[in-house]
Amino acid sequence: MAEQPQVIAALAARRLELVDRISSILPPELAGTVLLARGSSDHAAVYGRYVLELASGRPVSLAAPSLHTLYGAKVDYSGYLAVAVSQSGRTPEIVTVLERMKEGGARCLAITNTSDSPLGNVADMVLELGAGPEEAVPATKTFSAQIVAFALVAEALGAVPWQGSDWELVRAQVEQVLGDDDPAKQVAETIGDAEGLISVGRGFLYSAALEAALKLKETTSILAEGYSAADLRHGPIAVATSGLPVLAFIAPGPAASDMHELVSWLDQRGARVLAVSEEAGAALPLPSGLPEMLVVVPAIVRAQQVALWLARHRGIDPDAPSGLSKVTFTQ
Amino acid sequence: MAEQPQVIAALAARRLELVDRISSILPPELAGTVLLARGSSDHAAVYGRYVLELASGRPVSLAAPSLHTLYGAKVDYSGYLAVAVSQSGRTPEIVTVLERMKEGGARCLAITNTSDSPLGNVADMVLELGAGPEEAVPATKTFSAQIVAFALVAEALGAVPWQGSDWELVRAQVEQVLGDDDPAKQVAETIGDAEGLISVGRGFLYSAALEAALKLKETTSILAEGYSAADLRHGPIAVATSGLPVLAFIAPGPAASDMHELVSWLDQRGARVLAVSEEAGAALPLPSGLPEMLVVVPAIVRAQQVALWLARHRGIDPDAPSGLSKVTFTQ
Repeated sequence: MAEQPQVIAALAARRLELVDRISSILPPELAGTVLLARGSSDHAAVYGRYVLELASGRPVSLAAPSLHTLYGAKVDYSGYLAVAVSQSGRTPEIVTVLERMKEGGARCLAITNTSDSPLGNVADMVLELGAGPEEAVPATKTFSAQIVAFALVAEALGAVPWQGSDWELVRAQVEQVLGDDDPAKQVAETIGDAEGLISVGRGFLYSAALEAALKLKETTSILAEGYSAADLRHGPIAVATSGLPVLAFIAPGPAASDMHELVSWLDQRGARVLAVSEEAGAALPLPSGLPEMLVVVPAIVRAQQVALWLARHRGIDPDAPSGLSKVTFTQ
Repeated sequence: MAEQPQVIAALAARRLELVDRISSILPPELAGTVLLARGSSDHAAVYGRYVLELASGRPVSLAAPSLHTLYGAKVDYSGYLAVAVSQSGRTPEIVTVLERMKEGGARCLAITNTSDSPLGNVADMVLELGAGPEEAVPATKTFSAQIVAFALVAEALGAVPWQGSDWELVRAQVEQVLGDDDPAKQVAETIGDAEGLISVGRGFLYSAALEAALKLKETTSILAEGYSAADLRHGPIAVATSGLPVLAFIAPGPAASDMHELVSWLDQRGARVLAVSEEAGAALPLPSGLPEMLVVVPAIVRAQQVALWLARHRGIDPDAPSGLSKVTFTQ
């Protein structure tokens, strides 16, 4: 977890070279982009889904791997960029599906932690995260590195609402958050022995809400579920009963007013709202100054801290919680 | 809930006419399909995501509405079919985004419950479900009708692994399940006062797992979460602790062996697996004989029955649970 600032800085230092290499493998006329991932990488792909569609101006799809591995779908990917994300580059399902996409005519990019992997061998280009091996089973630095990688792919695809210099601010903010454990300790105590928790975000912080829920589930077995603010209001808001802890991810920008409205509604119902935000009074404060689309990186570090402290609070080893193994074999 | 057989039969009777009309609005060369929905309709869209990609042989994407409503994305949809799904046809967010897709060059199909709606006015064609008004806030017949509608769109897009005559079998099976309440009553008693529950499916039953969780949450406030079997194994399986009720959707086909493996693993961990399946010993039995891709319809009726009986068990009015309103306004 503590290595995240270096990993981000190292990726940012290779920015121009990486954007250039990605640009060189793009289809001449982009029909769309398809993203391929599982688990934690899938939540980075949700971020990618937003940022790549905004930058490329063509639709982005999250792949349904079982269409290929179980149902033998014949899909024509001509004109598509396929981006596969896998920490190890060895998840057999992801490798198989990227092969099918390549056969179907896609230009293929692999985002992995290593330069040499079965997934990398299939791809036209490997974007190596350089995050090194994850010591703990629940991935931390890989997720934030994947977010940076997707943002760099976006830079190759079109205009983006941030500048190269913003990456130094991301690194600095992550370092600042990592140096300030107290809010997470207090939030972990507030959550205590709750059986369930929900986390919620909107737009570019939706991926943070999903990833926070996964990290908390993996680490502490709490029934945590991540929502977009919009989806939460379309039905499952009934679960937000009195006392339920709610992690609410809020960044300045067009999604903020929607989040404020939701939070005040949750407050009224007696839910225990714990904001991850740069706003005054946030239970999990963030530094200010980043463009909305990059806030996800320091925000997810706050959630990682909560997972760590909640595990300790519950007497669980956060690095090796029960029921998890590193490479998951899915057919 | 009891009207589902008639709604399905009425849609099936219009099958050839509808397939013909859908075919007439398709782009000359399909670049991809994009689906637009929220809430319960979003789970029907997850089914659509599988069945339309399989039939069309081109990627299918689920839209991220906030890219348009919050971030003003300029997306080029030329060559795309856009399918918007909304029970009322009046959710402002869905109407706005379909307008943007049309401006971007998409051919637009609206799947709604009424012929005349703001969404229908934007679309090139309306596929009217004819499900009539939902009496209860949690939608039941609309979901199954939306599944049928997506299957008919698939027929217009390419080859499908079922026959026209299978629709009569779907109707008959739904009727049979509706006439047999006892399994759901018993399952509701087994779930009892559990705070959480997970539902899981794979491939064409993943949408059933998602919709079952939503229906249970909406109706009883239980912390229910739906997973694909593959995603559950990539991390959150740690939540499957002793005694946790798990609804497992299983149909004969390529996804079955994966589900069996998961179920036996959950059994070993002491989870309380409740199978929705035609296999012997299933807590929620299904009739046999349907192609895998259509089993979702009788399977979701089983989940609706469980939601109904669990609500009664908990002293909740299943038609008007707390915290829900019918048209949700999301910006």
